[in-house]
Amino acid sequence: MKFNVKITISLKGGMLDPEARAIQHALSNLGFETESLSTARLFEIALEAADEQEANAKAAEMCERLLANPVIHSYTIEVAGQ
Amino acid sequence: MKFNVKITISLKGGMLDPEARAIQHALSNLGFETESLSTARLFEIALEAADEQEANAKAAEMCERLLANPVIHSYTIEVAGQ
Repeated sequence: MKFNVKITISLKGGMLDPEARAIQHALSNLGFETESLSTARLFEIALEAADEQEANAKAAEMCERLLANPVIHSYTIEVAGQ
Repeated sequence: MKFNVKITISLKGGMLDPEARAIQHALSNLGFETESLSTARLFEIALEAADEQEANAKAAEMCERLLANPVIHSYTIEVAGQ
């Protein structure tokens, strides 16, 4: 069965995010004041799995082995059937 | 009033995404077969606005002027009150 998996990878709380600070600064220069700004990466993956649990497990392993750096990143996984 | 705005910026349909292809290839080398993979950037912004509509309009202007390249990117905006 085919599943669509949405993986969001963001920096762990407390990690410095210089890119976010730079964007916030640039927005401020354009006249947009923001209270906070954080960035994350989103991966949408279509994959074959027997059930939702297996799709979730595969996605978690992809995160651990390639997509995320477990030292500095946290990730969330959403699985939707298709 | 403070609003939390979630902006997702992705490549327009039909645009080549070499990064996604490289990740798909790397996943395949690790034994993870995927049918498709696409990447996007996520910005979570807390900002002051009079109402939801104004928060949405501000976020759209941020996208047009800084966050997205309207030629190659499409964006979606989700506004949540706080």
